[in-house]
Amino acid sequence: MELEDVILPLDEQFEQVIAGNDKMAIRQFLNHQNISDVAELMNQFPDYEAQIIANMATHRAASVFKILDLSQQKNIIKELPSSTVAELLNELPADDRTDFLEELSKETIRDLIKLLDPDERKITLSLLGYPEDSVGRLMTPDYVYVYEHNTVEEVFATIRKFAKNSETVDVIYVINEQGKLVDDIRIRDVILALPDKKVSELIDGRVVALNATDDQEHANQVFKMNNRVALPVTDSNNVLLGIVTIDDMLWVANEEFSEDMQKMGGTEALDEPYLDIHLLKLFRKRVGWLIVLFLGEMLTATAMGYFEDEIAKAVVLALFVPLIISSGGNSGSQASTLIIQAMAMGEITLADWWRVLRREIVSGLLLGTVLGIIGFLRVAVWHQILPGTYGQHWQSIGFTVGCSLVGVVLWGTLSGSMLPILLKRLGADPAVSSAPFVATLVDVTGLIIYFSFAYLFLQGVLL
Amino acid sequence: MELEDVILPLDEQFEQVIAGNDKMAIRQFLNHQNISDVAELMNQFPDYEAQIIANMATHRAASVFKILDLSQQKNIIKELPSSTVAELLNELPADDRTDFLEELSKETIRDLIKLLDPDERKITLSLLGYPEDSVGRLMTPDYVYVYEHNTVEEVFATIRKFAKNSETVDVIYVINEQGKLVDDIRIRDVILALPDKKVSELIDGRVVALNATDDQEHANQVFKMNNRVALPVTDSNNVLLGIVTIDDMLWVANEEFSEDMQKMGGTEALDEPYLDIHLLKLFRKRVGWLIVLFLGEMLTATAMGYFEDEIAKAVVLALFVPLIISSGGNSGSQASTLIIQAMAMGEITLADWWRVLRREIVSGLLLGTVLGIIGFLRVAVWHQILPGTYGQHWQSIGFTVGCSLVGVVLWGTLSGSMLPILLKRLGADPAVSSAPFVATLVDVTGLIIYFSFAYLFLQGVLL
Repeated sequence: MELEDVILPLDEQFEQVIAGNDKMAIRQFLNHQNISDVAELMNQFPDYEAQIIANMATHRAASVFKILDLSQQKNIIKELPSSTVAELLNELPADDRTDFLEELSKETIRDLIKLLDPDERKITLSLLGYPEDSVGRLMTPDYVYVYEHNTVEEVFATIRKFAKNSETVDVIYVINEQGKLVDDIRIRDVILALPDKKVSELIDGRVVALNATDDQEHANQVFKMNNRVALPVTDSNNVLLGIVTIDDMLWVANEEFSEDMQKMGGTEALDEPYLDIHLLKLFRKRVGWLIVLFLGEMLTATAMGYFEDEIAKAVVLALFVPLIISSGGNSGSQASTLIIQAMAMGEITLADWWRVLRREIVSGLLLGTVLGIIGFLRVAVWHQILPGTYGQHWQSIGFTVGCSLVGVVLWGTLSGSMLPILLKRLGADPAVSSAPFVATLVDVTGLIIYFSFAYLFLQGVLL
Repeated sequence: MELEDVILPLDEQFEQVIAGNDKMAIRQFLNHQNISDVAELMNQFPDYEAQIIANMATHRAASVFKILDLSQQKNIIKELPSSTVAELLNELPADDRTDFLEELSKETIRDLIKLLDPDERKITLSLLGYPEDSVGRLMTPDYVYVYEHNTVEEVFATIRKFAKNSETVDVIYVINEQGKLVDDIRIRDVILALPDKKVSELIDGRVVALNATDDQEHANQVFKMNNRVALPVTDSNNVLLGIVTIDDMLWVANEEFSEDMQKMGGTEALDEPYLDIHLLKLFRKRVGWLIVLFLGEMLTATAMGYFEDEIAKAVVLALFVPLIISSGGNSGSQASTLIIQAMAMGEITLADWWRVLRREIVSGLLLGTVLGIIGFLRVAVWHQILPGTYGQHWQSIGFTVGCSLVGVVLWGTLSGSMLPILLKRLGADPAVSSAPFVATLVDVTGLIIYFSFAYLFLQGVLL
């Protein structure tokens, strides 16, 4: 650590070692690196993916394997001989194994499960039985449990016996004879206690547990609110089934984040990295919503057709159509994003709809007034600079544009904020009320608002 | 646990206890609840916020305090006597204290820091010295460290001595005489080792450390890729400054997520829960971008003005303007969201721009062709049903609409995908190239594409 060696970058070291073609040297090199560095090497040298995994100690290979992208995992499984795949899958923690298997086709799952040891096979089948996105799928059955009557000394003995195979020893679980969860104790409290103290003296009865069928998003919230690195998972009878560790939550949060973002951008969730997904699949995920939005947007052509005579009489009206409807769309996108985000964070619940509505009425009026004034000034200034542009009725045109902007922005803000709440109320995913969706809705109604104000200000003048 | 008591819901229990007005009973009741349940009670009974904190054991009060919303924290600090505030702040882990203080005004920070013990004050001032959103701000100096020459027995003695004040004992840090980080060891390995084994025999030299000035988002990635519940933080000389625990990462991930979402919806990051932020502040955060977008969108009025004569000659052209430009906006939103999300997840780097461009050219052409065909059919079908709608030149109009859609969707897809990459290249935040921003950009150019195709197909016919 103290020596100032001239150290080659890791990728060049790797190239040298690979060039040497000495299996032992490759093994030794790989076993000296952090798993994140090994994963990075695999990104840089995709041709060596399988070889890298095959040349590492099995437990380290499993640690690397579980943080790889799905496409890399699939490649490796395809390339490795089935004996190595069997070793790898058996070594993989049960939760990460479930996470990998659930992405594969039914046939592949069946083939791979055959490779597992009987015990691991049983566990895997039971975990795959829980609903997708449930806590059950994240669970691992490898934890340390003790009984209330155990002494601290006995707890240490248990840890020494089971720690090798358990996902964490930072929290120890206390169960009763029926396997029901009594409490959890932190390793810190065990270390601080005298050897002859009983477990029953260490527990405080304040255990927080998840249910195996709970939503993963719920689990994320529980972890945030309780200072624990692992939480026990029970069934409805309070029987301890397994534990979930906090590191899985970082992956869940990232996945939820990606899905929400993609939905809000008007795409189905990709479920695969952008550069890995097949181009036709990418197309399929995008085209559906785009067609729906397009069909909705066709109503603008119908609405415009309805006002065709007015446009013919006052072509100047057509000039402001894009400006008016896009302002409604933009304010709607703002509002819907704010509300979807606040709902995702649990800051807003359905019961708050009235408070949200009141805030958005005020915000919409304020924002609309600002844009309305700018819109009116646009017409007035142009009239000063190029007097011919809007003719003698420039004031009426200015009022039409200005008032329409107030109306459209208010309407955009209200629909953008209420739509996510309404969708949630109906049991749908609020993220679907994406910016493009709100924009489309507001475009059609925006036209009606605009031409209504045109009638009001321009009837008998231009119309 | 086995008895089937009739248990009141927590909020009713709380009401009973509060009604009793017995301080001891309240204390006892509160100290028996999970911290997340206490936090929930404070949401339900905001009037009792300060009272609840004041009536808990200080270390538990601190645990509750740190998971509350900023507005609740501020209220509590305001309502409690300064002696209680001092106790609370001194008890709060250093990282959570920094997290709270950095949200307050300079004057309040100064007043509160005065309440701290000298040691805690020194720590807090140094943590507040790190840049916002840096790892330094998340750091806690409360960890257990040992030396290479220590035995396992000595390690346990150190843990017993310092565990009470340390944020975690799940990982123990090994430093040398200069305070430089040598390695980290997991508590599991210490428990499994014989008492006379030396620390130097337990270490494997594979330590992953963060730098205090690293970005918090980077830390999140490192936690994801390395199976650790805490990571050491060093300065540029590898001197151990503190540790960051994984539970902070869940909060960081949520915050990053909220900020990105809000930016993509065309708002500045709120930094406060939607319902708590002052209405005028909410307005200010929204109006800026809305004005910028509005000014950009004004170019559509200019562009439309340029084509005023064409619209006067063929009013039918105006009817499709909203449909055409919104299709460009929608495909642009899709593309930009996909790319921003993939960049946020680290799936796409700047070097991938050419791969992204190729994929988006193909996607854009495919999506544009689908919408173009639907657009043409729209004109054809309407012509069949209502023969008068588009006159005898309905085919030319149909081709204008269809080809414009291909062009506009392709253009929307390309600008939506390249803009985030370009912004990142320029050192700006890609999330700024939000759906509304891309839509505005595409609206103006979409008009030019549309009227160009109109010239091509309709010159000498309608124009």
